[in-house]
Amino acid sequence: LMTKRIAVLAGDGIGKEVMPEGIRSLEAAAKRFNIDIELTAFDFASCDYYLEHGKMLPDDWRDILIEFDAIFYGAIGWPEKVPDHISLWGSLLKFRREFDQYVNLRPCRLLPGIKSPLAGRVPGDIDFYVVRENTEGEYSSVGGTMFEGTEREVVIQETVMTRHGVDRVLKYAFELAQTRPRKKLTSATKSNGIAITMPWWDQRVAEMAKQYPDIDVDKFHIDILTANFVMHPDWFDVVVASNLFGDILSDLGPACTGTIGVAPSANINPEGKFPSLFEPVHGSAPDIAGKGIANPIGQIWSGAMMLEHLGYKDAGDAILAAIEAVLAEGDDRLLTPDVGGHGNTASLGQAISERI
Amino acid sequence: LMTKRIAVLAGDGIGKEVMPEGIRSLEAAAKRFNIDIELTAFDFASCDYYLEHGKMLPDDWRDILIEFDAIFYGAIGWPEKVPDHISLWGSLLKFRREFDQYVNLRPCRLLPGIKSPLAGRVPGDIDFYVVRENTEGEYSSVGGTMFEGTEREVVIQETVMTRHGVDRVLKYAFELAQTRPRKKLTSATKSNGIAITMPWWDQRVAEMAKQYPDIDVDKFHIDILTANFVMHPDWFDVVVASNLFGDILSDLGPACTGTIGVAPSANINPEGKFPSLFEPVHGSAPDIAGKGIANPIGQIWSGAMMLEHLGYKDAGDAILAAIEAVLAEGDDRLLTPDVGGHGNTASLGQAISERI
Ligand SMILES: CC(C)[C@H](C(=O)O)[C@@H](O)C(=O)O
Ligand SMILES: CC(C)[C@H](C(=O)O)[C@@H](O)C(=O)O
Repeated sequence: LMTKRIAVLAGDGIGKEVMPEGIRSLEAAAKRFNIDIELTAFDFASCDYYLEHGKMLPDDWRDILIEFDAIFYGAIGWPEKVPDHISLWGSLLKFRREFDQYVNLRPCRLLPGIKSPLAGRVPGDIDFYVVRENTEGEYSSVGGTMFEGTEREVVIQETVMTRHGVDRVLKYAFELAQTRPRKKLTSATKSNGIAITMPWWDQRVAEMAKQYPDIDVDKFHIDILTANFVMHPDWFDVVVASNLFGDILSDLGPACTGTIGVAPSANINPEGKFPSLFEPVHGSAPDIAGKGIANPIGQIWSGAMMLEHLGYKDAGDAILAAIEAVLAEGDDRLLTPDVGGHGNTASLGQAISERI
Repeated sequence: LMTKRIAVLAGDGIGKEVMPEGIRSLEAAAKRFNIDIELTAFDFASCDYYLEHGKMLPDDWRDILIEFDAIFYGAIGWPEKVPDHISLWGSLLKFRREFDQYVNLRPCRLLPGIKSPLAGRVPGDIDFYVVRENTEGEYSSVGGTMFEGTEREVVIQETVMTRHGVDRVLKYAFELAQTRPRKKLTSATKSNGIAITMPWWDQRVAEMAKQYPDIDVDKFHIDILTANFVMHPDWFDVVVASNLFGDILSDLGPACTGTIGVAPSANINPEGKFPSLFEPVHGSAPDIAGKGIANPIGQIWSGAMMLEHLGYKDAGDAILAAIEAVLAEGDDRLLTPDVGGHGNTASLGQAISERI
């Protein structure tokens, strides 16, 4: 039995509150399925660390983290302490890029007991994945300002796409689609407006599609695609998108299922050359931090994705089943306020871990 | 009484079918309010024109169109005939840029009798404007490809923002917010990920806000903003956004109100140096073209925005009231199939024009 070593970075705000519940369920699943995991917590990658050290990470963060099999991540950012573009580019976005976690995978599905803002949708109606390119594209740091501070000020930022970067994430998405019953892939584009990168993106999708004749491929411009998430969420199975479009769709998708506060996210290096990182979709939520009422399901569900990634699909499934069971029961003494209860982070986390 | 000269460009697909109804209502309102309008139709700015002439527009299009007080526009694009990035960059996007229509204004509101995909929302709950920058930003044509056609292929496209371009659209949005009872302005940003242009956008918003102390300003990152359109559409009053973000929000907003097939759009040059352009949000919809069932309300409502822009607010209001009256009546013999009827483009258009 090989020990799986997991680095724990709770981050800021409610990240610190939901992480203990993420760990509780992880340990419960490990115990039940006899998995040997070893957790090591670090205080870096947080705004408090930044205020103390003037940087988000220690200089040897790469050497430290590369020893781990995975990174279990809370939430980062506290704009009143450190501007977001500093805290995030100094941590999360650095990990994604430098550990080449080029796939960001986010499930969107209607869960029992969670109220969707969409009319008339029931569990089973909505169940798809957003596959987001996670290292390049619109999230470049290339560009700059000319005539700074004057009336003539011009600010330029470049979107950089590479065949290497785009093809590998498309491949991942096509292969994911092959594992699904509907075998359908939707590409997010904007080739009618973003006239250089996006027509080329369309070409790469068309090229890749030739190698997967069993997959039913379509594409939508991002504007009407967001509209279709609301109007026809049942149309989608696997949606593949550039970094920015994927960012938008993977918040909008969970919003449509009512799960934005509970959705998980995996930042994956599929080759396993670097550790992958698992985090809830929600942020650090300074407005509710410290109250102990944050919903821990996003963190717990991220733990399930992490176990699946490490080869323990049964254990991941058991966690998700426990989440669904507690939600379906709907005991409002256990549930957090965001899902209509009057319990707290710990009561909900405990209820889930007990059912694992 | 001064004659208002209007250029009519119906475009492609259902553009040609809804335009006659747009004109019918326009003429009804002109008659009732004693407005002297003169309509002149052109066949350019369509894919058929392109197939015949090898270009979307005649060389002297600027000289032709600049003589008009406004452009009444249908819908453009027919990807099977001409790729979108050719047809659109050769017409609509050219007008927006070369006639400096730097404001794209789109109302999002729940109308009576239209089914919103959002649960439990009723008319009055959702009523806001998206103000989109319409000439620069992410819709540049600056960039290119290196190592083309090889494994090392790199494709770059630049987002270009200028103080001139951003400040003027912000000013328009702040002034629009001043005319509204709630006096609220929301800025769409992504300064945590798009790390050069968007933090600067935030600064320009903060700077402009100082001149409008009566306006309540907030901002959201585009990912969570799209989520909030679905979860909390009642939060919004005036939303200001860059070209791409505005494009997305102004499709998503109407989708949330169930009006994507009927929403209008104004491309405005506020100084009146160039003609402004009024068009429905929906596209040319090749899939339903030729059937005579396209909903003409987007075209008719665009006509209302055009009359308001030309100084005839009463006439514009009368058109909108007629639209709302017909929808509220809900006579399914008159309504088009998309809004639950079994009528057609002409029956719905006629019903509206009769009520003006
Ligand atoms: C057709 C397309 C180029 C256009 C845009 O992206 O601006 C459309 O979506 C719109 O919103 O008017
Ligand atoms: C916090 C932010 C930089 C990040 C992103 O845009 O990638 C977040 O929205 C996400 O989706 O993980």
